[in-house]
Amino acid sequence: MTKTTGHISELPLAPCASLQLEDPIRPELFQGQFEARPGKESGLTQFGVNYVVLEPGSASSLRHWHTVEDEFVNVLEGAPTLVDNQGERRLGPGSYAGFPAGDGNGHHLINHSNSNAVLLVIGSRHRGEDVCHYPDDELGPVQR
Amino acid sequence: MTKTTGHISELPLAPCASLQLEDPIRPELFQGQFEARPGKESGLTQFGVNYVVLEPGSASSLRHWHTVEDEFVNVLEGAPTLVDNQGERRLGPGSYAGFPAGDGNGHHLINHSNSNAVLLVIGSRHRGEDVCHYPDDELGPVQR
Repeated sequence: MTKTTGHISELPLAPCASLQLEDPIRPELFQGQFEARPGKESGLTQFGVNYVVLEPGSASSLRHWHTVEDEFVNVLEGAPTLVDNQGERRLGPGSYAGFPAGDGNGHHLINHSNSNAVLLVIGSRHRGEDVCHYPDDELGPVQR
Repeated sequence: MTKTTGHISELPLAPCASLQLEDPIRPELFQGQFEARPGKESGLTQFGVNYVVLEPGSASSLRHWHTVEDEFVNVLEGAPTLVDNQGERRLGPGSYAGFPAGDGNGHHLINHSNSNAVLLVIGSRHRGEDVCHYPDDELGPVQR
């Protein structure tokens, strides 16, 4: 049976999935990234809710934007830096950032602080329809 | 221009919209409920992200379930009580609860504590397709 309630910080954390690729891009950014998936654990299919821990030096993803999927980040703990088309901006607990589908605003969060940062990341799921763009890397556009 | 980043607790809080109805149902549950909409503020259309403050005695909604929309709640502060088909359960900061579309699990959160409770509530948007059921009240099913 699906576990529909729980405590988010008690969910088992998994290492970043992209490190399992045969030839990961900039793996040094992701060795300190761990996540749990309370949305999936609850049986949700229409959007993902990921609880993401970024150790110092690690990033939430490569800088990217989605053509079809909306995305939203809420900072739960720590002081990660948002990097997007407008430059860099230090966030703090309670900061949010929204990335509407197709906005062309390549973004990620990177933890330049000395403490862990913890994020809640929500993204709609339109698998097979979405294309992801990575403006800083030799990657994609990637159909997802 | 859409404000795509900010601090979630600095957004202006509005009283519960259902109190504006001509004949609101159980208004005493909603007089202490206030919310901001950081998802909408960010220009998102595929899911809503609501920052909800429940003063003591107030509730997040009537007990309900959605036929088409997934819903997820993360407790940011305080100790609201989840009421659903399984009964009552006190939650705390970091608690989550997921409600997959069509699960038939009528739910709401009510603040029986003496301090404010603060929630992040995420729900997919399928306006025109969703039907909401209210098992405790003479209301609906309501096409939304």
